Amino acid sequence: MALKGSDVAAHNDAKSCWVIVHGKAYDVTEFLPEHPGGQKIILKYAGKDATEEFDPIHPPDTLDKYLDASKHLGPVDMDTVEVEEKEDDPEEVERLERVAQKPLLSQCYNLHDFEAVARRIMKRTAWGYYSSAADDEITMRENHSAFHRIWFRPQILVNVETIDFSTTMLGTKCSIPFYVTATALGKLGNPEGEVVLTRAAHKHDIIQMIPTLASCSFDEIVDARQGDQVQWLQLYVNKDREITKRIVQHAERRGCKGLFITVDAPQLGRREKDMRSKFTDPGSNVQSGQETDTTQGAARAISTFIDPSLSWDDIPWFRSITDMPIILKGVQRVEDVLRAIDVGVQGVVLSNHGGRQLDFARSGVEVLAETMPVLRERGLDRRIEVFVDGGVRRATDIIKCLCLGAKGVGIGRPFLYAMSAYGQEGVERAFQLLKDEMEMNMRLIGAASIADLHPGLLDTRALFSHSTTPADHLSTSTYDPLAVPAQRPKVARPGLKAKL
Amino acid sequence: MALKGSDVAAHNDAKSCWVIVHGKAYDVTEFLPEHPGGQKIILKYAGKDATEEFDPIHPPDTLDKYLDASKHLGPVDMDTVEVEEKEDDPEEVERLERVAQKPLLSQCYNLHDFEAVARRIMKRTAWGYYSSAADDEITMRENHSAFHRIWFRPQILVNVETIDFSTTMLGTKCSIPFYVTATALGKLGNPEGEVVLTRAAHKHDIIQMIPTLASCSFDEIVDARQGDQVQWLQLYVNKDREITKRIVQHAERRGCKGLFITVDAPQLGRREKDMRSKFTDPGSNVQSGQETDTTQGAARAISTFIDPSLSWDDIPWFRSITDMPIILKGVQRVEDVLRAIDVGVQGVVLSNHGGRQLDFARSGVEVLAETMPVLRERGLDRRIEVFVDGGVRRATDIIKCLCLGAKGVGIGRPFLYAMSAYGQEGVERAFQLLKDEMEMNMRLIGAASIADLHPGLLDTRALFSHSTTPADHLSTSTYDPLAVPAQRPKVARPGLKAKL
Amino acid sequence: MALKGSDVAAHNDAKSCWVIVHGKAYDVTEFLPEHPGGQKIILKYAGKDATEEFDPIHPPDTLDKYLDASKHLGPVDMDTVEVEEKEDDPEEVERLERVAQKPLLSQCYNLHDFEAVARRIMKRTAWGYYSSAADDEITMRENHSAFHRIWFRPQILVNVETIDFSTTMLGTKCSIPFYVTATALGKLGNPEGEVVLTRAAHKHDIIQMIPTLASCSFDEIVDARQGDQVQWLQLYVNKDREITKRIVQHAERRGCKGLFITVDAPQLGRREKDMRSKFTDPGSNVQSGQETDTTQGAARAISTFIDPSLSWDDIPWFRSITDMPIILKGVQRVEDVLRAIDVGVQGVVLSNHGGRQLDFARSGVEVLAETMPVLRERGLDRRIEVFVDGGVRRATDIIKCLCLGAKGVGIGRPFLYAMSAYGQEGVERAFQLLKDEMEMNMRLIGAASIADLHPGLLDTRALFSHSTTPADHLSTSTYDPLAVPAQRPKVARPGLKAKL
Amino acid sequence: MALKGSDVAAHNDAKSCWVIVHGKAYDVTEFLPEHPGGQKIILKYAGKDATEEFDPIHPPDTLDKYLDASKHLGPVDMDTVEVEEKEDDPEEVERLERVAQKPLLSQCYNLHDFEAVARRIMKRTAWGYYSSAADDEITMRENHSAFHRIWFRPQILVNVETIDFSTTMLGTKCSIPFYVTATALGKLGNPEGEVVLTRAAHKHDIIQMIPTLASCSFDEIVDARQGDQVQWLQLYVNKDREITKRIVQHAERRGCKGLFITVDAPQLGRREKDMRSKFTDPGSNVQSGQETDTTQGAARAISTFIDPSLSWDDIPWFRSITDMPIILKGVQRVEDVLRAIDVGVQGVVLSNHGGRQLDFARSGVEVLAETMPVLRERGLDRRIEVFVDGGVRRATDIIKCLCLGAKGVGIGRPFLYAMSAYGQEGVERAFQLLKDEMEMNMRLIGAASIADLHPGLLDTRALFSHSTTPADHLSTSTYDPLAVPAQRPKVARPGLKAKL
Repeated sequence: MALKGSDVAAHNDAKSCWVIVHGKAYDVTEFLPEHPGGQKIILKYAGKDATEEFDPIHPPDTLDKYLDASKHLGPVDMDTVEVEEKEDDPEEVERLERVAQKPLLSQCYNLHDFEAVARRIMKRTAWGYYSSAADDEITMRENHSAFHRIWFRPQILVNVETIDFSTTMLGTKCSIPFYVTATALGKLGNPEGEVVLTRAAHKHDIIQMIPTLASCSFDEIVDARQGDQVQWLQLYVNKDREITKRIVQHAERRGCKGLFITVDAPQLGRREKDMRSKFTDPGSNVQSGQETDTTQGAARAISTFIDPSLSWDDIPWFRSITDMPIILKGVQRVEDVLRAIDVGVQGVVLSNHGGRQLDFARSGVEVLAETMPVLRERGLDRRIEVFVDGGVRRATDIIKCLCLGAKGVGIGRPFLYAMSAYGQEGVERAFQLLKDEMEMNMRLIGAASIADLHPGLLDTRALFSHSTTPADHLSTSTYDPLAVPAQRPKVARPGLKAKL
Repeated sequence: MALKGSDVAAHNDAKSCWVIVHGKAYDVTEFLPEHPGGQKIILKYAGKDATEEFDPIHPPDTLDKYLDASKHLGPVDMDTVEVEEKEDDPEEVERLERVAQKPLLSQCYNLHDFEAVARRIMKRTAWGYYSSAADDEITMRENHSAFHRIWFRPQILVNVETIDFSTTMLGTKCSIPFYVTATALGKLGNPEGEVVLTRAAHKHDIIQMIPTLASCSFDEIVDARQGDQVQWLQLYVNKDREITKRIVQHAERRGCKGLFITVDAPQLGRREKDMRSKFTDPGSNVQSGQETDTTQGAARAISTFIDPSLSWDDIPWFRSITDMPIILKGVQRVEDVLRAIDVGVQGVVLSNHGGRQLDFARSGVEVLAETMPVLRERGLDRRIEVFVDGGVRRATDIIKCLCLGAKGVGIGRPFLYAMSAYGQEGVERAFQLLKDEMEMNMRLIGAASIADLHPGLLDTRALFSHSTTPADHLSTSTYDPLAVPAQRPKVARPGLKAKL
Repeated sequence: MALKGSDVAAHNDAKSCWVIVHGKAYDVTEFLPEHPGGQKIILKYAGKDATEEFDPIHPPDTLDKYLDASKHLGPVDMDTVEVEEKEDDPEEVERLERVAQKPLLSQCYNLHDFEAVARRIMKRTAWGYYSSAADDEITMRENHSAFHRIWFRPQILVNVETIDFSTTMLGTKCSIPFYVTATALGKLGNPEGEVVLTRAAHKHDIIQMIPTLASCSFDEIVDARQGDQVQWLQLYVNKDREITKRIVQHAERRGCKGLFITVDAPQLGRREKDMRSKFTDPGSNVQSGQETDTTQGAARAISTFIDPSLSWDDIPWFRSITDMPIILKGVQRVEDVLRAIDVGVQGVVLSNHGGRQLDFARSGVEVLAETMPVLRERGLDRRIEVFVDGGVRRATDIIKCLCLGAKGVGIGRPFLYAMSAYGQEGVERAFQLLKDEMEMNMRLIGAASIADLHPGLLDTRALFSHSTTPADHLSTSTYDPLAVPAQRPKVARPGLKAKL
Repeated sequence: MALKGSDVAAHNDAKSCWVIVHGKAYDVTEFLPEHPGGQKIILKYAGKDATEEFDPIHPPDTLDKYLDASKHLGPVDMDTVEVEEKEDDPEEVERLERVAQKPLLSQCYNLHDFEAVARRIMKRTAWGYYSSAADDEITMRENHSAFHRIWFRPQILVNVETIDFSTTMLGTKCSIPFYVTATALGKLGNPEGEVVLTRAAHKHDIIQMIPTLASCSFDEIVDARQGDQVQWLQLYVNKDREITKRIVQHAERRGCKGLFITVDAPQLGRREKDMRSKFTDPGSNVQSGQETDTTQGAARAISTFIDPSLSWDDIPWFRSITDMPIILKGVQRVEDVLRAIDVGVQGVVLSNHGGRQLDFARSGVEVLAETMPVLRERGLDRRIEVFVDGGVRRATDIIKCLCLGAKGVGIGRPFLYAMSAYGQEGVERAFQLLKDEMEMNMRLIGAASIADLHPGLLDTRALFSHSTTPADHLSTSTYDPLAVPAQRPKVARPGLKAKL
């Protein structure tokens, strides 16, 4: 027999805390102190229906996995649950107006356009999570800017009637040398979450990397796979290696073709835009100077399990538990690429985590330009597959990486924006736009296939020159500029006289 | 006997499609699928008068050339054709107000001024076609900016009473070392089209390059020639080499003095500003992700015949069909200049097509500075005439190119803007302004004639340094800057509370 | 028996000038010409209560120290002192509104935030004194910007579970390698002044440097010390060496652990923002061109005692009067660091005085990068402790200095802003935020302790490149930009016709 | 007997043209075609009083010198001259309001401030003449910016109690190493003209250079000299060498101590801001493309006599006609400095004429840094005195030039702005501010006298790096930036449909 709303409503504080999720009641009283996102956020929904807030940041199997069966209280008769009357939120009203005026998908001509639309129509907190980056967001900006310091030296009078940009990454043939890289919390942008990306990737023969922190469960994302579609697994290594082992071996069994171990995130970054977007609570005791850890945004809440002690010594163990190729994701210096070759992994992703971790980390493409000449000099350039991600927005960016020696590039946020703004069709159009650009730009560079791309097609002399100070928005907007005198002073007022 | 409007109006769909152009009816039913601009655009005028839309983008001999005589249905009694009642378009009304307030021609003091006026008074779509460039328009901006990284080292106390900047290009004496380079679709800016440029060029003894994609027919432009005026031919090579041969040999017969083969456009570029300026149709089915090819702007529509297989192997054939000097237009690296000398052409234009093709192509003047020292070192600098185009706006730009070793420079857009804003008088004033600047600046540099210009008059140390990131308007305007806190949060609202 | 207000009010001009401070009357007639801030400012309060203006810029023991006991006239019955009716100052009203809307402390996520808040809520003159810098404020901006030209080369797969950033400076163990550097006039920002910083520093185990020009007396600041808290003394050297000796030996007796002799301020800088913020007096005779010295802002008024003849020859004398380690604060070139080692001091602070002295002085971190390789090459890098201050706003800035070889960094203004905006809690939160950033960024760089930081973790290639012109706000905003013609000229008006 | 107004008014066209200047009538009919500023401007005043327009641009002895005595018609009874009723000009009304609100002189704290005030309160045409520069004004901006690429390496612990910045230029002792350089048309800014500068220079013991194109007559400026004040002569060389000889020898007789021959102006520059500020005439025939020469601004009108054939061959002749030291003003490359030494002149001014001539000429200070090492290497640095002008606004700029090896610097526009805004007192305050800055900055650099300045006090590594593109306002403001889609297109309108 189903519970009544009033039964649940009675358990509305820390002493006894029940919540409703998807029509079922759960007793989370004992779980409160263990909740990675803090207990405060659960207590807001004590005795109430928390589904709407629960969904985007918890895979559907979360409660089954983490809450003992004895705490599953069974179905609730939802007709008896009191619906909270929500005030009209003027900010939300304006957002919905912008949604109604959303540009047509066919008005989007490049990847920036999706970002522009998403920024206007996404909920503030979701936008904050997707778009934020570390500290002053200088690395995030640099990721894109670095490509602007690389110029082309195109060849003319090459027969470019037929352009073929298909390629092979980790043994998988694919239509174009980029993959959908792992990004967390897909349901913040679209109610269906990461499976939307899976379906679009299938249509375009593009490889998808499945994120550890997906909103969908791993199996949902694999189940959405069609035909011989290829997926990789991105892994945050859990402090409990047994859990890690279970995840890896399960992924291999389910057909994943590559294991990308994230190595640039022993701790998830502080992303201030994300933190600010959460801040709405004018509670009385928040003036205390100590509580810097309460509202850290989504990133912190979901990442407490990540192991900061992960080290080179762990790599052989990974090789022992799986036959998938192992790729280190987040390598940032040539020395570590050489070491990766030494320990026998199959690939590296030169990446700074989309600028979301360490500010002033160099862009992947700059590290690539530092790395490949060293590998070539030592005859190691074919011993490992080198990937790059961060800031890729144009086919020219992809081509630049391939000319330098990358096997492929990862693209993340742009597809989230496309998905958030237009769903699967948006993602497909984003893929198609990149393909159109790819065909045209390879033609204009005088390269008919991926094999024709080489460093001589680039002028990278400016790449390592960071002399242009990146835009530091916070200090620029805070700085009080000097002023020239404009008119006579007004008559002096008491309290403001020159006295010093 | 003339057709009646109602006769034509009956054929108003894809099954039977008649249109009226310049008072004559044509049956284009069978031609629909072959129309380079797509059939959709024709069907809008099925059964109607299409003259106004037809004119700017089709040379007048188009229908005679491409539509079988049997489809020419003869004259229409235009009094019987129903005139569509056009609503007042508020955007057009505003534009006409700006036209009425157009600055006086004598208020224009430099080439930028014509662009500023044209931008205000041209139709949006025409402005979009002329002013747009590839991708993020970084190459277009760089073309002009590159000149800003070259500084002068002027000589003093040189007798500069008499300044002579006349010169010789490809054997032709001319008044000043620039030519009017080829640009498409002149009638978008002026109802008379390219002949306006021809007449102005004659008055100032300036060479004109005739574009393949002119709005006027080739013969109209040649017919507008006066006295011993010199014209060159710009050629997009057709997939059908017989057509190409016919065009080249016809041009030679009509007196053209140089054949400029465009080699930087195996495919015409994606110009997003142009594409956006076309977009006005909120049709219901446009949300589909696939249709990236329907509204590609003017550039794509008119260029489908261009041969992407054109290669170095074709050059001997060109030499076999004409005695005109052959110049490769769009060379972008010193290696290809050397190869051009090897295959025996008479000249190259270092150009990136005005930034309209490949974004991040280097500017012509930078490639010039890369090229000439190599040619001089190998004793090849007199074996070929080197021209440059892209971004030239000031006589100082021209002088910089000549100091580096160019024979002359091409200027395109500025004259289109002058023509669009003020017709032939505008173009002539643009020429005169450049001559005034030329005289003054040669005097100030201490050079009395073109022969006195040499590399020692320049400081080019900064030219190759691209460390200043060019302005990437799309990503800059899309980026959501960080913000500092300004005031207390307002009282929390349901639906926006911090929950993660 | 207490004086009456009317007794004091009768002495209201230069001939006989009494003032009330903290309820006591003083005869300052003879002192007028000696007042470092000029007599004009005192005469404004002749016969009146000057407490409010006196407090922030005079330590409480000032009158006892500098005014002969015979001039102390004793207590005043404050009920008999006429209270001046102050008009409502609209600027002050607006400021108070901003104070009421002040963001919550928990909304501040980084050091910039405190500055943003302080700028909005501080009194104009106080903000002017704290935030101003020399000339065009280019050095102040450069101090922060220089850090933006240093990028990281992070190490991955290092065990960073435990992060320890405690360190030792001048023999003192402390929790984090920064100290609160000396800044003047703390009471402008907070009525309690520098002791607020002392208390916060104690809570966080951070070293404080006591400024010569504090608003609190030296002893008040020392008295506020708790436990084994460590303080240093910053010293402006007085022309009268006996006074200097007394100050130094008193400090040593009171337990100060380091003597920082300021060597970059033989004259305190002209800070125009500060000077402008003082300007409110539209007096009739101010149009005279000579009086540039009347309203020089707070900095000049309080610094007339500083000895501009201080030289290397004085250093042995300092060594003779104290056993505290001696550190030269304000060294700006490697040659002077070498000389400092020669004369046997224990440390240097590479500093340009927060940009408040000489404009176009290089940043401390740049001088550090110039200095340390020279020291290492000569085996001198352990012979002296090198500190840096200027522009530090992020833990990444601290880490960069330590990687280069600094022992610690000084931070000044940010803590003043935090104190001005939120008092002691604000300062503590600022400390905590830096610690949070420090922990995270050391983890992300792959360094578990201070000893793990080394130059190889940085890419400093761009540091010495100043090719980006710093923002010179005055000339930029003064410059009259060129304009393009927008419309026809209006009908000519008499008096403006073109006549030349 | 005086003429009546009606007598003059009858001669009001080109056939017979009389004008009144300072109460006297002149017959200028025959002079009309010879007027350097064109006859059109005189004809506007045919039959009328032209005094107000005549004054600022003609020295008072002009009519005596250039108009035959027979054309001097004698005094006019000014009461009988009809006064033109001027309409209220709203622009002038606004300007006068700004004049009334002019900041107090004591609010000006640096040289930029005078420019800011002058810009607000000067007449548009006068401001246009003073502030304008060549082409895109990039050289003018660069002149100032170049100083921003030079940084200091200050020395500490030097005894700087006494600062002495007096120096000697061309044998003349003066109070500070700058001079008032020659600038034209002083009466545009102040009704008294250049003598205002003379008087202020005397008060401050500063050398003044007398301009050829002064508003005051040469003798008036010399007559204003007091005591042992020193003046130099700036010379534009007249095509008629006899006139030149007369000017030079007259100047020497009147006591001028240096002859500065301008060598960077064989033709005066096109200054578009100046030209635009003149443009007010919407005449009907101005649409003709040819008339680029009618409204060239003040610069062109007053300079037609300058000899463009002046060359190195003329220098010996100058040496033969005067014993004054000869200095070439406007040298812009080290080769020409060497040649100047060869021909035996006593000095050079490295200058680009304040950016008013050739755009993209390098700044004087950059040429100085190119020149001095070459001179030193060849042992020639004491053979010639090297001066610099252009962009100097701060004492730090002066010090940088002196460290590099200059004997002194010229400053022009800032004193014109000070004079225009505040008359003689303004100029004196400008001098005093520079002296205050000079004293402070020499102290902060650790240099007690001019002899202590040397290249080791500078970091000039960035000086030659022009990689930051200068602000090109015209092209930046003209460029049509890319845009992202913001909302759905509105319903299509006829006439704007997508058709291409």
